[in-house]
Amino acid sequence: MNPAVSDYLQTHQDQFLDELKTLLRIPSVSADPAFLPAMTQAAEFLRDQFVGLGFTTEIVKTAGHPIVYAEWLNAPGKPTVLIYGHYDVQPPDPLDLWTTPPFEPTIRDGKIYARGATDDKGQFFTHIKAAEAWIKATGSLPVNLKFVIEGEEEVGSNNLDQFLESNKQKLKADVAVISDTSQYAPGIPAITYGLRGIIACEVTLTGPKKDLHSGIYGGAVANPANMLARLIAQLHDDQGRVQIPGFYDDVLALTTAEREQFAALPFDEKAFLNEVGSPATWGEAGFTSLERRWARPTCDVNGITGGYQGVGPKTIIPSKASAKITCRLVPHQNPEKLLVALEAFLKARCPAGVTLSFQSNHGCPPFVFDPTNKYIDAARTAITTAFGKPPVLMREGGSIPVVATFQQILGLSTLLLGWGQNTDNLHSPNEHFTVADFHRGIHANAALWPELPTA
Amino acid sequence: MNPAVSDYLQTHQDQFLDELKTLLRIPSVSADPAFLPAMTQAAEFLRDQFVGLGFTTEIVKTAGHPIVYAEWLNAPGKPTVLIYGHYDVQPPDPLDLWTTPPFEPTIRDGKIYARGATDDKGQFFTHIKAAEAWIKATGSLPVNLKFVIEGEEEVGSNNLDQFLESNKQKLKADVAVISDTSQYAPGIPAITYGLRGIIACEVTLTGPKKDLHSGIYGGAVANPANMLARLIAQLHDDQGRVQIPGFYDDVLALTTAEREQFAALPFDEKAFLNEVGSPATWGEAGFTSLERRWARPTCDVNGITGGYQGVGPKTIIPSKASAKITCRLVPHQNPEKLLVALEAFLKARCPAGVTLSFQSNHGCPPFVFDPTNKYIDAARTAITTAFGKPPVLMREGGSIPVVATFQQILGLSTLLLGWGQNTDNLHSPNEHFTVADFHRGIHANAALWPELPTA
Repeated sequence: MNPAVSDYLQTHQDQFLDELKTLLRIPSVSADPAFLPAMTQAAEFLRDQFVGLGFTTEIVKTAGHPIVYAEWLNAPGKPTVLIYGHYDVQPPDPLDLWTTPPFEPTIRDGKIYARGATDDKGQFFTHIKAAEAWIKATGSLPVNLKFVIEGEEEVGSNNLDQFLESNKQKLKADVAVISDTSQYAPGIPAITYGLRGIIACEVTLTGPKKDLHSGIYGGAVANPANMLARLIAQLHDDQGRVQIPGFYDDVLALTTAEREQFAALPFDEKAFLNEVGSPATWGEAGFTSLERRWARPTCDVNGITGGYQGVGPKTIIPSKASAKITCRLVPHQNPEKLLVALEAFLKARCPAGVTLSFQSNHGCPPFVFDPTNKYIDAARTAITTAFGKPPVLMREGGSIPVVATFQQILGLSTLLLGWGQNTDNLHSPNEHFTVADFHRGIHANAALWPELPTA
Repeated sequence: MNPAVSDYLQTHQDQFLDELKTLLRIPSVSADPAFLPAMTQAAEFLRDQFVGLGFTTEIVKTAGHPIVYAEWLNAPGKPTVLIYGHYDVQPPDPLDLWTTPPFEPTIRDGKIYARGATDDKGQFFTHIKAAEAWIKATGSLPVNLKFVIEGEEEVGSNNLDQFLESNKQKLKADVAVISDTSQYAPGIPAITYGLRGIIACEVTLTGPKKDLHSGIYGGAVANPANMLARLIAQLHDDQGRVQIPGFYDDVLALTTAEREQFAALPFDEKAFLNEVGSPATWGEAGFTSLERRWARPTCDVNGITGGYQGVGPKTIIPSKASAKITCRLVPHQNPEKLLVALEAFLKARCPAGVTLSFQSNHGCPPFVFDPTNKYIDAARTAITTAFGKPPVLMREGGSIPVVATFQQILGLSTLLLGWGQNTDNLHSPNEHFTVADFHRGIHANAALWPELPTA
């Protein structure tokens, strides 16, 4: 990497940290109207940062909290990178569980404690500081940069889609970068190249018009709770494979290289079971726990209810029983197609003595970034430079809606470069971020840009 | 029947009805301490009735409401009949749904409306009035009679067992008679000769120690709600037969005569479905709806719960899921044996990724009175005399704990001679009893006694 940039990073660590503290002191809780002034304050702080670096900057009003947009496009012929982050944070409650107050950033044992330290202020700020290093040390950037920093991620990003839809041309880029995930473990930096998608529904079986006396009627009417159990049981075979027709048709199989890479990661099954508290692992036959979580689809009941919910026995046949069901999807499963298949599967197996109603909820497509492409290579090189060791290639079992949105609306793939740890207490008291990872993250970002391939 | 008794019955109908009204005016609600004085008043009213007929009578104190005990044993060599009833009634709420006040008995369209009219004051009173007719008309009774009228049936009969246990010798009898059930339908008098028993349990599956993120962990841990569904689904085969090993071993098969008798009863499937509201009937293959309800065992989920119970989706893997399960049992299934079998069945099929806890609740054995025996014959003759048509032989799908108790503690079988109707609004506003059935019931009781076989 450019030696002047390296020097700048080295000599400005204290300033970077001080500025991060200033940002963390702003209680930009998007969920609570009491913090509305802080939302403006945070957006203005970021605007001032970008303006100071010569970015064209605006605070974009939305129906909710504003989006900070900033661009620097003075590198013609070079790649354009869209960087996403969010300046809003989770509510800090319960306050009494914090060792130091959530909006008084404090450093202990090499970690900075504050609400938003890792989710996401501390992480997206690494990109702004990397830009600063390049501009201050060399007068320019090795790529074109577009920043989208929203203020509603913790409350559902309700106004982001419309902003993206309305600014498709302006937001054109070669690749997106988001730092809002985690490393694989302390000392094991990672590139997250895949996410699972999701479909969600609620299925309700209705039998008798009201709860019936199980003595008088039992045996002669279909019991919706028993019938629901029979339906749910059919969702998997004895090998843990989902039985919805066509469910696996579009599943992208893991390559041998991916499986080897996952298998090489430190994974302690005993520690995993201790963490979750289950007596044994479970899952689709033929796959490891990491493969099951990252690269295989699921079908889980999230909630089930029917009949008597109180203490002790009550001898009724419930009128209704229902289950909330979600399937986690993997590349290249199609949410719309599988929602139809799930509904058809359940309806085809619904017995005659009950009626079935099916209600679908919002879903999200899966995402995968080909792990052999040049952007991943560039990120690997940059992270190796900054962290002193190559990153592992991992996936995440959950969904990140904005990644799907970037793909759907802007046609962009996203490099997920997480500098945090799973153990950083995101959304919990005593959220923190390792200071060394903050600086290594800045370094990795600064090292990434010159490595990025031109399209 | 004795013509003098017949005459007495005919000429004292108004008096009988007036006395019933007096009894119904006493608001003997056992559940509510505010009605405590009425409980005493009801017990004393009954004591006075028995004393007036020359019965040896006592009001037996219990830890709860008193039991009225009365005996007349001046028919040596004749059978002894134990008659059970209860003078307590359900709370009358909601009061605003009553057309006339619950404790102001009113006759409309040949029915007497009041709380307790059919459950059970109006029904057990028929036995006292039958005794009166014999004693006043002939100076004696054709059998020995022992009355046990308790005041806690509507609150669980908590002190009855101890009274029976402590008075086994005193309560010795040849047969018990209870009028606390219904006819098959208006104009179709019935003898109920079988009841189902019950076993009850709650089964809980526990997987992870807390609800898990279904994205991060889904696919790698057993989901207790899915696993519970798989367990419950295994309780029946596709023919509606319960799969617990040995479940049907002790089931007393219906005889051809019983099946013909049931098949001859008017049963309108469309009306039944309209009544319950189910889209179709369901049940064990090879049996009719009445057979399924009266003479075949069941396994029903009464309540199921697990995971998220609120509105909309929540992407978790629940830590726990549980179901309340009851099996209705038929003669001669053994509750203790089947509770063990049910627990063993569930535990044997519990997958490795969850742990199972099993909690059993109070059960009750089934009951059947051989429909070809002489007591049933006697009742058939008596009812034919009183109602002008022979009774049908039916069973009930529910349990009547006192019948099981009489069998277990006193070794007595019970003739269930119900004079009410299912449509009499038991436990509901506007409870009523058909006045003609009240008189026919008295008549049937009076006609029964001389028919009873000597042991």
